[in-house]
Amino acid sequence: MTAHDAFTIEPWGLCEQSLDLDVLARAESVFALSNGHVGMRANLDEGEPHGLPGTYLNGVFELRPLPYAEAAYGQPESGQSVINVTNGKIIRLLVDDEPFDLRYGDLHEHQRRLDFRDGLLKRSALWTSPAGRTVRVTSTRLVSLTQRAVAAVSYEVEPVDGPARIVLQSELVANEQLPSANGDPRASAVLEAPLVAEHHAHNGAKAVLVHQTRFSNLRVAATMDHIVECDSPFQGETETEPDHARYSVTTVLKKGQKLRLVKFIAYGWSAARSLPAVRDQVAAALTAARFTGWDGLVEEQRQYLQEFWARSDIEVDGDVELQQAVRFALFHVLQAGARTEERAIPAKGLTGPGYDGHCFWDTETFVLPVLTYCLPDAVAQALRWRYTTLPMARERAAQLGLAGAVFPWRTIRGEECSGYWPAGTAAFHIGADIARAVERYVRATGDAGFERDFGMEILVETARMWRSLGHHDAEGRFRIDGVTGPDEYSSIADNNVYTNLMAQANLRAAADAATRHLHEAAALGVNTEEMAQWRDAAAAMYIPYDEKLGVHPQADGFTNHEMWDFENTPAEKYPLLLHFPYYDLYRKQVVKQADLVLAMQVRGDAFTAEQKSRNFAYYERLTVRDSSLSACTQAVIAAEVGHLDLAYDYLAEAALMDLHDLGGNTRDGLHMASLAGACISLVAGFGGLRDHDEHLVFRPRLPSGLSRVAFAMRLRGNLVLHVAITRAEATYTLREGEAIKLVHDEEELVVTADKPVSRPIPRPVPLERLHQPPGREPARRHAQSGPTVASVDPTGMHEGE
Amino acid sequence: MTAHDAFTIEPWGLCEQSLDLDVLARAESVFALSNGHVGMRANLDEGEPHGLPGTYLNGVFELRPLPYAEAAYGQPESGQSVINVTNGKIIRLLVDDEPFDLRYGDLHEHQRRLDFRDGLLKRSALWTSPAGRTVRVTSTRLVSLTQRAVAAVSYEVEPVDGPARIVLQSELVANEQLPSANGDPRASAVLEAPLVAEHHAHNGAKAVLVHQTRFSNLRVAATMDHIVECDSPFQGETETEPDHARYSVTTVLKKGQKLRLVKFIAYGWSAARSLPAVRDQVAAALTAARFTGWDGLVEEQRQYLQEFWARSDIEVDGDVELQQAVRFALFHVLQAGARTEERAIPAKGLTGPGYDGHCFWDTETFVLPVLTYCLPDAVAQALRWRYTTLPMARERAAQLGLAGAVFPWRTIRGEECSGYWPAGTAAFHIGADIARAVERYVRATGDAGFERDFGMEILVETARMWRSLGHHDAEGRFRIDGVTGPDEYSSIADNNVYTNLMAQANLRAAADAATRHLHEAAALGVNTEEMAQWRDAAAAMYIPYDEKLGVHPQADGFTNHEMWDFENTPAEKYPLLLHFPYYDLYRKQVVKQADLVLAMQVRGDAFTAEQKSRNFAYYERLTVRDSSLSACTQAVIAAEVGHLDLAYDYLAEAALMDLHDLGGNTRDGLHMASLAGACISLVAGFGGLRDHDEHLVFRPRLPSGLSRVAFAMRLRGNLVLHVAITRAEATYTLREGEAIKLVHDEEELVVTADKPVSRPIPRPVPLERLHQPPGREPARRHAQSGPTVASVDPTGMHEGE
Repeated sequence: MTAHDAFTIEPWGLCEQSLDLDVLARAESVFALSNGHVGMRANLDEGEPHGLPGTYLNGVFELRPLPYAEAAYGQPESGQSVINVTNGKIIRLLVDDEPFDLRYGDLHEHQRRLDFRDGLLKRSALWTSPAGRTVRVTSTRLVSLTQRAVAAVSYEVEPVDGPARIVLQSELVANEQLPSANGDPRASAVLEAPLVAEHHAHNGAKAVLVHQTRFSNLRVAATMDHIVECDSPFQGETETEPDHARYSVTTVLKKGQKLRLVKFIAYGWSAARSLPAVRDQVAAALTAARFTGWDGLVEEQRQYLQEFWARSDIEVDGDVELQQAVRFALFHVLQAGARTEERAIPAKGLTGPGYDGHCFWDTETFVLPVLTYCLPDAVAQALRWRYTTLPMARERAAQLGLAGAVFPWRTIRGEECSGYWPAGTAAFHIGADIARAVERYVRATGDAGFERDFGMEILVETARMWRSLGHHDAEGRFRIDGVTGPDEYSSIADNNVYTNLMAQANLRAAADAATRHLHEAAALGVNTEEMAQWRDAAAAMYIPYDEKLGVHPQADGFTNHEMWDFENTPAEKYPLLLHFPYYDLYRKQVVKQADLVLAMQVRGDAFTAEQKSRNFAYYERLTVRDSSLSACTQAVIAAEVGHLDLAYDYLAEAALMDLHDLGGNTRDGLHMASLAGACISLVAGFGGLRDHDEHLVFRPRLPSGLSRVAFAMRLRGNLVLHVAITRAEATYTLREGEAIKLVHDEEELVVTADKPVSRPIPRPVPLERLHQPPGREPARRHAQSGPTVASVDPTGMHEGE
Repeated sequence: MTAHDAFTIEPWGLCEQSLDLDVLARAESVFALSNGHVGMRANLDEGEPHGLPGTYLNGVFELRPLPYAEAAYGQPESGQSVINVTNGKIIRLLVDDEPFDLRYGDLHEHQRRLDFRDGLLKRSALWTSPAGRTVRVTSTRLVSLTQRAVAAVSYEVEPVDGPARIVLQSELVANEQLPSANGDPRASAVLEAPLVAEHHAHNGAKAVLVHQTRFSNLRVAATMDHIVECDSPFQGETETEPDHARYSVTTVLKKGQKLRLVKFIAYGWSAARSLPAVRDQVAAALTAARFTGWDGLVEEQRQYLQEFWARSDIEVDGDVELQQAVRFALFHVLQAGARTEERAIPAKGLTGPGYDGHCFWDTETFVLPVLTYCLPDAVAQALRWRYTTLPMARERAAQLGLAGAVFPWRTIRGEECSGYWPAGTAAFHIGADIARAVERYVRATGDAGFERDFGMEILVETARMWRSLGHHDAEGRFRIDGVTGPDEYSSIADNNVYTNLMAQANLRAAADAATRHLHEAAALGVNTEEMAQWRDAAAAMYIPYDEKLGVHPQADGFTNHEMWDFENTPAEKYPLLLHFPYYDLYRKQVVKQADLVLAMQVRGDAFTAEQKSRNFAYYERLTVRDSSLSACTQAVIAAEVGHLDLAYDYLAEAALMDLHDLGGNTRDGLHMASLAGACISLVAGFGGLRDHDEHLVFRPRLPSGLSRVAFAMRLRGNLVLHVAITRAEATYTLREGEAIKLVHDEEELVVTADKPVSRPIPRPVPLERLHQPPGREPARRHAQSGPTVASVDPTGMHEGE
């Protein structure tokens, strides 16, 4: 069975028709539920078998030492790893004293289904125990999008062929044993028994466990309560131990009788509050959840999602699998960002322990551009989290001898946790990526209060960083030397084009914001001289260009480097970073992920159309996509320069990253940036959306495989713009709000309420297909009209980031 | 007391007039004895107090893990650390049951003296025990230069104010407790109890201990025997335990009576041989030593050194302290290299555990150029060690995707042990440094057999490495991208001038050697096509040049980088690497150690005189000398471009590195490269010797502080050339051999036996003094005629490498 046979193809949901024990961990990621605060992998209710047990609370981590073979100044010595907190999902079942364990007995049916419209993970199984009794088990699990601390499970069991003695054990388990790490540097460090018990208690069907992490000193509380419905008399009992709470229900069911258990779970954590405070906080959340009731939670969830989809859906006609994948992507991006509330959005969301649960530039560069137009409050929250980390970023800047703030390359709480500085600290572009996200959010929403109170300080401190990092050379050019751009197969280069263009935008944005908020800027010590310095540095920014080749080198000297020997690099040597040393990757022309091409997307204004075409063709030959952060960007620029079918192929790769497990590491969690990137591929690629100027600009073009793409966007608080694109025309409809000005191709349009505006789309000029490194071409995607699987995965495609 | 008050100033020796317990470890390094195989720090005979106990056997190390915060392909995972082997130096004394411990009682006199002409460390003390008995203790220690496995001590005690009961305990102690590490990354990792006992035995006054290292599985044997002379009846007794052997002598001496103990010690180790074999090997060495006897060993030592000095002395008139320092330097370089015999010469010799006992490029670049002209056999041995490591170097090259051989940046046995690749593996120049040493040795000695049997394979395999590391760009230039040159404040740069010039020489040397030994080259798979490829790559080698500034950038783009803010870098922030992050050092114009300037020394033929002057002035402003591998090179080029007094200052810094503890880390061992560099400063600096062409070239010039410099050189086996330089003229005398052709200034001379040739030296043109980074100027050295101390150490000068 290939990775993607596992799921049916349908537009609004994902259904797994049978259970494959070999790839349990992958399904646990794909079906994970989260609201951005609480995350639950789709571990089976009964706990075992499992691929990778995981329950996460955003911001809960443990410290661990970062070792170095050779010490050096400024290397972070303490790392942060997400930990598996108290597992509240577990409901064990005994049928006539036989544990319900799918590894034993006969499993006749097993189905799991996630519907993107209701946010419920439904499971049903028909199982005959080794002793011969057959039961039907159904369960529904939710992590509430409306009640941040709350998850709930409805669990039902029914004997179908005769009477059975049934015991249900609903549990809270702390310090679950985890499978040992597999040595892949990309997987999380497994932290054994990170929780130290502080408190355990029970009362009726309620129980609570409170723990503290050993080194990071975070207090974590988990509590549960239960409602039992039974067609037969039953008895309940609650017990607690330091690492374990259990509520047991016992009954005897006749054939056709049912036992149903509704379990409410509430989580809370704090770095500051006392044990009674945290304990009471989760008790309150639990009480509220129980008051809402199971049906109430389900209904809230449905309404929340209904509203979300009404304003944010992306429709894809002509390719059902892609339609499914894009909604899957949007759903998980929503889950990752919905309720983070001043916490980070990690690279894997809360779907797995990959990358130690760290947040990278992925968030601001890929995830927030999507959330900006569908869940802008989540963007404000995510950026407010960055704002709260400014003191740490200032301290890091001081340690590095820089002004302003240096945001960490990877972190959970805010401290730099990168143990390899050439691909960590040296990637200073993260500061500009965050600044760009601030700028975009403010422009899209008009949230001047956010800009004034939070955004400007981020812009100012990052601009100060750039001004101190760069310098003017003898000819007056402003240079930024010795930094690492997005492409991690180059490092420590001078004048990385992406970095310099993003820094330029950052410097200008800071000056502009300070101009709008002169008073508040003055409070940050900004005066007009400093603003002028930023504008001058931006104006003098040096952007290298290779006149001979007529392309932009990714950084100084890049186009002089030796070509990677792509012809003699076999498929099994990818991702390259696992088979070749950094020194070799760094000094050759080979690109892990879009770098100059990303610059052409986010700073499209800095390139001519002709440059974009030439640059794109040049870098296509060099880009191996050993990172999941590449295909979507290549899709966007491929579409812009007219390679629409190639864009389509890249879009599919980005969208199917996890459903087809293209990186081979979906088990460790979903690739949020790639999922968000699929949405970007459609909206910025085929929709041609660019949002770096005052008005939104669209330049829609469809590939041959798609008949229609449509999407909605929330703008300036109360506007909802709907864009529908066919091969012949684009139609702009203002679904909510009064009027909006936008640009279609080169034409300025004003779209007003209830008056859709349509404009024709020119027929695309056929172009010769571009070359990629041999064996690294994206799979060709052909148009599909029904639930079949036609695409072929690139052989051996694994992700390297 | 400052560092250098400790020693008297005299031309042929070093004398410490009193004991300073605070700086014991420094004196232990300075007075260390070694023959390149066995090394003994100058720990006091009685073992305590000590600074850093140390007895080393060249090649005996323990493995230890090299940890990384983030894993990557090709990172070495196992490191090697020199270990303190069984201590055979210890002779404890009890006076009326009071241990002779200088921390107690009254020490009236304590003197240690090392004479460079006899190689004996003599000690005498006059001490009154806490109980009031006064004794005179004298001891003499030697590590034999003629009997490689052997050390010996003559120890004498005499009560001077009345009778005393005397016990002497002569010991072998394995797994000595060491002081804990101080956290300085430059100090050795302390390995606790690395030796596992295998065998212990005694017979008469003899005892032996055999151990194995735990992980590296090296077998180490130490044995001792004793002769007692006593004016009074005495009793001897021997005991052994697994980690301890003791021979005790007891007697009662009257006032003026003496007890003398002569201790013979022999060491051996093997990675392959059995316990009986290693045990018997040391027993044989011990027997031979005892047969030679104490006086015999002393006489052999004296003769060996007499011969050495006759052919290798460097005379410095006008500055006694410098004369002393230069002989100190030569003596220790001799000790480090004399009897290595297919083992490495570590950066610290066998004088301390600094840098984990590793061998770096220091050996080939600084130490071997000196040994080539005074102890050429030692050079052949050191290069034969490199030859024996070729299989490891080929394996490393294959791992790195390169042809030929990649020698390790740091190692004991031959495997790469660098845990930070940007300043380790990326410093590929070590391959060319080794090739250059081969070339120099063969040219100086005419040892064609060595070239054919060992040297050529090194040249061929390093040439192959360069050919695969570099590539031709579109204009046909041969580029070497992404490497690190000598200066460790830059990293991973394109076309480092030093590296490219050295690679060019390496490629040519390989082609030339293959031409001389066509048959043997063919056996290595070399054909004329490959030789042509090497020559072509060498001819096309790209050497960047900054036309605007009229200087060579150290590497591509270097002169565009921001200047380090020297003005605002206070003295206490040096060495910079302990106070600033690498990213910051790498991207700015700041130089840790001569890089481009070293290129001008070793490849002087590649620069015009004008370029040398301009380059030197440019890099003087940037070079902070945070490495001890810099002053000597700056001295050489300063002299060449006419800054003779500046050269004198740098010479003094190199020469006094350890006697004045300028780096603050002499405690961890002596800086062999700096000591050798002092000799280079004189010979290549004031002598103006260049040896990269067929004939030796001299261009002698003296600074105002020196009235005469003279040195002898061994050449082509049986020639000894003596060069004497005054301010007015240079005189070339052939002391041994028939005739030699050489170049003085631009003039070719033939010097024949017994016919000294004198040539006038032009009066130097006064030049304006160059600028160095503020606070990093070398101390000005004024002419001295007697034993006074006039120089001032640069404040806070510490070494960073």
